Amino acid sequence: MIAEIITIGDEILIGQTIDTNSAWLGEQLSLQGIRLNRIVTISDVPAEIIHAVDESFSRADLVLMTGGLGPTQDDVTKETLAQYFDTTLEMHQEVLEGITAFFTSRGREMLEVNRKQAELPKNADILMNARGTAMGMWFEKNGKVLISMPGVPYEMKGIMRDFGFEKIRNFFHTQPIIHKTVLTQGIGESFLAETISDWETALRNEGMFLAYLPSPGMVKLRISGYAENGNADKIENRIDHYIKELRRRVPEFAFGSDRETIAEVVGNMLQERKQTLALAESCTGGFIAHLVTSIAGSSAHFMGGVVAYSNEAKINLLEVSPDSLASEGAVSEKVVKEMANGARKKFNATFAVATSGVAGPDGGTDEKPVGTVWIALAGPKKTVAKKVIFGKSRSRTITVSALTALNWLRNEIFKSELE
Amino acid sequence: MIAEIITIGDEILIGQTIDTNSAWLGEQLSLQGIRLNRIVTISDVPAEIIHAVDESFSRADLVLMTGGLGPTQDDVTKETLAQYFDTTLEMHQEVLEGITAFFTSRGREMLEVNRKQAELPKNADILMNARGTAMGMWFEKNGKVLISMPGVPYEMKGIMRDFGFEKIRNFFHTQPIIHKTVLTQGIGESFLAETISDWETALRNEGMFLAYLPSPGMVKLRISGYAENGNADKIENRIDHYIKELRRRVPEFAFGSDRETIAEVVGNMLQERKQTLALAESCTGGFIAHLVTSIAGSSAHFMGGVVAYSNEAKINLLEVSPDSLASEGAVSEKVVKEMANGARKKFNATFAVATSGVAGPDGGTDEKPVGTVWIALAGPKKTVAKKVIFGKSRSRTITVSALTALNWLRNEIFKSELE
Repeated sequence: MIAEIITIGDEILIGQTIDTNSAWLGEQLSLQGIRLNRIVTISDVPAEIIHAVDESFSRADLVLMTGGLGPTQDDVTKETLAQYFDTTLEMHQEVLEGITAFFTSRGREMLEVNRKQAELPKNADILMNARGTAMGMWFEKNGKVLISMPGVPYEMKGIMRDFGFEKIRNFFHTQPIIHKTVLTQGIGESFLAETISDWETALRNEGMFLAYLPSPGMVKLRISGYAENGNADKIENRIDHYIKELRRRVPEFAFGSDRETIAEVVGNMLQERKQTLALAESCTGGFIAHLVTSIAGSSAHFMGGVVAYSNEAKINLLEVSPDSLASEGAVSEKVVKEMANGARKKFNATFAVATSGVAGPDGGTDEKPVGTVWIALAGPKKTVAKKVIFGKSRSRTITVSALTALNWLRNEIFKSELE
Repeated sequence: MIAEIITIGDEILIGQTIDTNSAWLGEQLSLQGIRLNRIVTISDVPAEIIHAVDESFSRADLVLMTGGLGPTQDDVTKETLAQYFDTTLEMHQEVLEGITAFFTSRGREMLEVNRKQAELPKNADILMNARGTAMGMWFEKNGKVLISMPGVPYEMKGIMRDFGFEKIRNFFHTQPIIHKTVLTQGIGESFLAETISDWETALRNEGMFLAYLPSPGMVKLRISGYAENGNADKIENRIDHYIKELRRRVPEFAFGSDRETIAEVVGNMLQERKQTLALAESCTGGFIAHLVTSIAGSSAHFMGGVVAYSNEAKINLLEVSPDSLASEGAVSEKVVKEMANGARKKFNATFAVATSGVAGPDGGTDEKPVGTVWIALAGPKKTVAKKVIFGKSRSRTITVSALTALNWLRNEIFKSELE
């Protein structure tokens, strides 16, 4: 079965917004075994919308549409679709109550334009949006389906996860593709491919597929196989077998699977061992803390951290010695180790991670060029440090430093080298 | 004049790659005064490519095509376009020399497939790619133009910057559109639209356009106008006039313009006033520090912060009183003010921002439901706090709390209320 995506919004056409919705939907559709034939982005103009829907329906069974459902004058999707599907809008009582509750719970005044968002096409099934005021709408015509959703990514994803995918599976009786992802940190795509080439060949010989998905500091490996004739369990077992083998071969790089994050994996290890973590961040500027605290429940193992951006802060809050700062500089093995030790002591934690580097774009020297980062780990038994050199991009250095530090901690906790 | 983009690549349709090329091209086209009518993403299939080009040529004067020019078997764009434009491929000597030099300079072996990349359509103008081995190609047909480029973003951008845009300007004699963006924080899209509806009407009556672009905690307002008959200066003046009026009307919400961030705006204010900032974060978990330190040069005004995730950390590092924690709880006016005062003192900063809340998804009570956040600001003269209530999404609460805190600080610095 074939799907197409229609994205509505001038903000995408003029490049103010990058269309991440289509990438997410494309991935999810492929997980459902549905082939995405085309993505079309058009502007908020009724005639354009109608023309695009006609075209997509001529090729596809399922059309996913995002955008143009906001409360303002430039949002015309709902009225246009009501016209296209030959229906009228009516006040939807349950939705009105939901929107009213949404405003009440936030202590915000509800306006007439918001009330109007509860006026919905009579012949559409409403896919409730628990995260906002623009509902999803499911239309059927000649055995084909169009789903209209708001363009705000987390609202769109919520609607699809809560209702959309299940309704699609039931309506079209799709056969799933089984996908699993292994997450690696600390090894480049080409080097990883070379290291595991025989493993990859064996997997492909069994009719499965492999994709390398690189992002800053990480490479995801996605393994897929078609579950034909109800053999989903068998395919899943074979994929699990290959994942186990991969993790056995590169345990220092393969830190997790699917939607896990490295902060979550480290957090779970600490939780199991009833150990705790503290941070002392200079160049990563709070980004490691942000990764750790993005995980619900992290307060159980995360004591806290100091973002020590000034020498004064390093001295006063982390007990770094002024002599070390004067003789070695802030970006040095000695100082980063003192930072880790200070954080461990101040927060009374089992382990501490510290970073100090030149994030750039300025501030580099011949001896310590932009992208030079010292990372330290402190534990009950010892404190270790290493130097890594990244590129010239500030945001990339921050991200990759944070991931490198957390993965190193994961390996050291696993080997119990610090305690 | 009207343009369309055709993006070729299965990796985009299955969500492995996010199409950032189209966003960049869309922005650049709009800066050139060219209206982008549609973005279409299709797979690497000759019939699909030919059909998409036919469709786009029926609507647009200019078609920009990216992708499918690599050296591997799945790249079919060049052969397909040669067929479409009724021509054959021939070895292009200058390009062959360039590709040979490219491999020589990198010390890499040149393969037959790379040599073949110098075989190019006879009737295309070649747009040299100084960054890779796939050249840009400019085709003309009935007064319309198609440019084919590689999908690697920095190669595509290089070709457009080096040759593409200039050739387009010369061929089509284009007039620019002027765009400017005002960034707001702390007011919802609907409420903002109501507050400024007469301003919006006046702007539209002058033939200009307005778009509301919401994201968590923020609404961007984009104002556009066509610069016809060389009146670019006049249009720009009118847009500036409206922006000035808008900022005068909602100064507490309108914090910046175009690509600014709120951390950058606050940073610039502090830098100008030679003032400094410290942070004490509980529920935002280091995210404010991350926003602040993402700005290059922030070390000049940012002293540092404490992520105080445990009561112990609040007491030991921020001098919060154990009595306040016991009687009021960590999520309270009293404690968040003590956190701000503690950070200000410990980091010896002019101002401090503190947050304490229930980020969720667990940990809420009737009295303090998930999404309840206390924010405090401390300055030389006084310390103030307020309570805000967000929704149930942890990541959203973290993001919106951080933006709210920084925008509040901006307003208080501006009014000099804290000093």
